Amino acid sequence: MSKGLFITFEGTDGCGKSTQLQLLSEYLKQQGFDVVLTREPGGTQISEKIRDIILDPNNKEESEVTEALLYAASRAQHVAEKIKPALESGKIVLCDRFMDSSIAYQAYARGLGEDVIAINMFAIQGCSPDVTFFLDLDPRIGQERQVARGKLDRLEQEGLAFQEKVYAGYKELINKYPDRFKVVNANREIRDIQSDIVCLIKNLLKQ
Amino acid sequence: MSKGLFITFEGTDGCGKSTQLQLLSEYLKQQGFDVVLTREPGGTQISEKIRDIILDPNNKEESEVTEALLYAASRAQHVAEKIKPALESGKIVLCDRFMDSSIAYQAYARGLGEDVIAINMFAIQGCSPDVTFFLDLDPRIGQERQVARGKLDRLEQEGLAFQEKVYAGYKELINKYPDRFKVVNANREIRDIQSDIVCLIKNLLKQ
Repeated sequence: MSKGLFITFEGTDGCGKSTQLQLLSEYLKQQGFDVVLTREPGGTQISEKIRDIILDPNNKEESEVTEALLYAASRAQHVAEKIKPALESGKIVLCDRFMDSSIAYQAYARGLGEDVIAINMFAIQGCSPDVTFFLDLDPRIGQERQVARGKLDRLEQEGLAFQEKVYAGYKELINKYPDRFKVVNANREIRDIQSDIVCLIKNLLKQ
Repeated sequence: MSKGLFITFEGTDGCGKSTQLQLLSEYLKQQGFDVVLTREPGGTQISEKIRDIILDPNNKEESEVTEALLYAASRAQHVAEKIKPALESGKIVLCDRFMDSSIAYQAYARGLGEDVIAINMFAIQGCSPDVTFFLDLDPRIGQERQVARGKLDRLEQEGLAFQEKVYAGYKELINKYPDRFKVVNANREIRDIQSDIVCLIKNLLKQ
């Protein structure tokens, strides 16, 4: 049985997940918790190698089926090598994207459907998040932030129409798992968003 | 609809698949057929990159679930980019290992079970072999051949007990698909084995 706490962050591109994860990690460490901050699809040496294949802009021939299986493979390794051992030793695991990303991006936005859920259930082998923060931001604003940063990878190049499909996919997931998902308005100042997340975490740790 | 012919070669390590594939490819080309000779898990640029991750002896931490998903990802790309287009243009595709390898190695020998079949059905998207040659060789003899070659990769290092489980897995598959599988005794001279394969191919091409 897992003794730790498994927290994931989800959202469309440019929603500010990485910043909030970093702030939450610092907060929890200050409170004396043992925290592992990691990300999807990477997090381990093998997973990072897989991530390089997925995100390489030269791999234009990559089929959608291949991509879905590579994300699942990366996740399987991430769970087996890093997340499960950390949870078993009582740590708090903070993860930037997890299986909900695959469902929103591949199953819903790309239309690969139920098969993506099945391969991901195989990949995680029962290791589901305890709580998932959804950073809720209009995909148009996220896209503008990404362009301002000046670096778009292969996935981000697909544009706004795709991000809107991803956003709709997340909304379906939130309706499906209302207890696990905590929706946070991400169109605000960084400190205000962080403050909401910390409040939710405090309630969670009291339980 | 596929107009070509999809032929796969299967067997335990050291059974002589690669030699026989090469000879069959040469024979078919001499007969005027348009032949594509390829192999699993590689065959395309992306698949080869995935293969490098799977077979890297430094990746000792790789979980069995990760491995099964990587093989499926490599296969998905191989099918989408190479096998399906070749079959659609009427070519004969000869492939060194295909989904039966994953079922024998991962589902049976590693005990990952039915999930491996499901992820592979997703990977191939309906592109099943028309005929599969099983080069039947006592795993002990195959192992001796491998040792004599002096190069064992990470999978081959797992030894004889594992190869025997793989062999038993293939036997189950042969019982399950007796029409698709052609079993060839591989404990003979190269030319005798080739002669059997050519006879079987001639009958197949007559149909």
